[in-house]
Amino acid sequence: MSRAYNFAAGPAALPEPVLRQAQAELLEWNGARASIAEISHRSPEFMQVAAEAEADLRTLLSVPDDYAVLFLPGGATTQQALIALNFAACGQTADYVVSGHWGKVAVKQAQAYVAANVAASGEANGFRDIPAAAQWRLSPDAAYVHLTANETIHGVEFRPEWGEIPDTGTVPVFADFSSSIASEPLDVSRYGLVYAGAQKNLGPVGVTVVIVRRDLLERAGQPRAEIFNYAAHAKAGSMLNTPPSYNWYLAGLVFKWMLAEGGVEEFARRSAEKARLLYAAIDGSDGFYRNEVAASVRSRMNVPFFLHDEALTSAFLAQADEAGLLALKGHRVLGGIRASIYNAMPVDGVRALVDFMQDFRTRQG
Amino acid sequence: MSRAYNFAAGPAALPEPVLRQAQAELLEWNGARASIAEISHRSPEFMQVAAEAEADLRTLLSVPDDYAVLFLPGGATTQQALIALNFAACGQTADYVVSGHWGKVAVKQAQAYVAANVAASGEANGFRDIPAAAQWRLSPDAAYVHLTANETIHGVEFRPEWGEIPDTGTVPVFADFSSSIASEPLDVSRYGLVYAGAQKNLGPVGVTVVIVRRDLLERAGQPRAEIFNYAAHAKAGSMLNTPPSYNWYLAGLVFKWMLAEGGVEEFARRSAEKARLLYAAIDGSDGFYRNEVAASVRSRMNVPFFLHDEALTSAFLAQADEAGLLALKGHRVLGGIRASIYNAMPVDGVRALVDFMQDFRTRQG
Repeated sequence: MSRAYNFAAGPAALPEPVLRQAQAELLEWNGARASIAEISHRSPEFMQVAAEAEADLRTLLSVPDDYAVLFLPGGATTQQALIALNFAACGQTADYVVSGHWGKVAVKQAQAYVAANVAASGEANGFRDIPAAAQWRLSPDAAYVHLTANETIHGVEFRPEWGEIPDTGTVPVFADFSSSIASEPLDVSRYGLVYAGAQKNLGPVGVTVVIVRRDLLERAGQPRAEIFNYAAHAKAGSMLNTPPSYNWYLAGLVFKWMLAEGGVEEFARRSAEKARLLYAAIDGSDGFYRNEVAASVRSRMNVPFFLHDEALTSAFLAQADEAGLLALKGHRVLGGIRASIYNAMPVDGVRALVDFMQDFRTRQG
Repeated sequence: MSRAYNFAAGPAALPEPVLRQAQAELLEWNGARASIAEISHRSPEFMQVAAEAEADLRTLLSVPDDYAVLFLPGGATTQQALIALNFAACGQTADYVVSGHWGKVAVKQAQAYVAANVAASGEANGFRDIPAAAQWRLSPDAAYVHLTANETIHGVEFRPEWGEIPDTGTVPVFADFSSSIASEPLDVSRYGLVYAGAQKNLGPVGVTVVIVRRDLLERAGQPRAEIFNYAAHAKAGSMLNTPPSYNWYLAGLVFKWMLAEGGVEEFARRSAEKARLLYAAIDGSDGFYRNEVAASVRSRMNVPFFLHDEALTSAFLAQADEAGLLALKGHRVLGGIRASIYNAMPVDGVRALVDFMQDFRTRQG
């Protein structure tokens, strides 16, 4: 068995202790004489797993009591449609701040249901920066303001150096935190709703976390099936129908691992260190490597970069793979290289990448 | 490690060889230096897993080429809403044949989008039988006719002894096969669409199979987000967004196991034998045990039954559990006992249950 440093953007690396525990109990969970994957979601055994996962996530993110926590299938993209259906009247205006590819997808999913107003977009600038808050053209009567906290493809993240998300008064801010949740403390009370596909910082693919202020669940929204109704999911404890229970269990293992490692404060420290190492290697390469994102919004989670000579990209990828540095190929939208360095990526993994980058540059010297 | 016979209705027992293989390769899949759960869904490795799963399912069910096969999140309930959105105009009539609890849920999910006509219902009779085809009040201009091939809670299944599903002309029949798919040969061409949550006969929770005739994907349906569009999912190979890749992989392992065991013909043989043993034990108990479903529509997959003295139910369940016969408690809608005997349940498991039932009856004298 040989595991390497895996820089995949999602599905992404899982903590090895989590995989080992899942492996050990795959055939029998905790004396149940069956796998947790084979047990009814309504059994006392799974109900306990589910409740612990929610409690641990609440602890990790200091989720206030007036927020519901849902564990749902369908990924972040499904939530982008459901958000419009649940929280906006038919055709009502909703504001979108678009800082990369996934912000555009969010607009696309919502357009069937709302008048999506792109209040700000970094697209004219190739998403290398986020428009200043003063330039946002927010609608006073918007159902919500949507933003993407971290853009997985473009490597753009709302950082303190960029500034504060503007006060939107009674209009709640909804944020896609898929690729940065639990990587640092999060002031949930700043948002009406936070959602995140789990397959990046929270662990397994196949389950999505939605954290939503309970009073918003009283909004009428638009005609929709019960299965598309967040309030119904909240009332049913995310068990309106059979949930992706095994994925939920794996997420719970990741939450326990994160708590044991020191919680989000510790992951904030590691994330800062990993990002510092990697950007320093890029910026200190005399242009051999290049990241084009404005310093104030550089992502700590996804670092896209290019080689000065594009023709070297495939050699870089092949040699990195041989060196045990996996999945560094950039997303097809941008090309080049991308290193995703979520919570499960140890600092040593980034050190190994940085060492490889320096060696590769020297060899091309 | 001690595994018992697990009669859970879903999530349900998985084949032990599948669990053992998943366990062996959980930390590293096939020399990839990472778990399949950590690998991009768009990587060559996962694309191969996905393609093999589809090919194997096509082989198992003899799916004609003019049908698309989708692997989607959200469970069967989500498909019940999506079916209406994708294949009916807003408010168009759709016919529903309701033979149990899940047929009612299907109506409920669709009602936001279509005029759901209950063409036939067994409810007045406690869902102990399925109305004869001659009594169905089908609408000539329906978008589709929906039925539930097997009712997991009420233990009612469309069987040859009941008769043939009537010819609906150009109106396609859509069928929820969640709890009986791959338990016997299926003439897919008889249906416009077949869907099944995988967590019963197909293996893992968290992924749903949709088999749909391609020409139906050209229907306009209703305004909806792209993520709710079956045609978009088909075009994208079920990778419009990040799919539940690990669940898809597990389903693929189950498909290979089913093929190796002899395919659906062999599971039809085993299912018939298991059902014969269990119903014989009930019917031959001089009323100690009682199944109320008409003989012509008794489910081969889910066998609900009652003890002549309801007060004995909890003792039955406790002693069964001690005897290594798990999850026999009936669904809360019906109470009593329910044995779900999907493909992963060996004939020996049903023999053990039948032996226990006879012992229990003898002890109660």
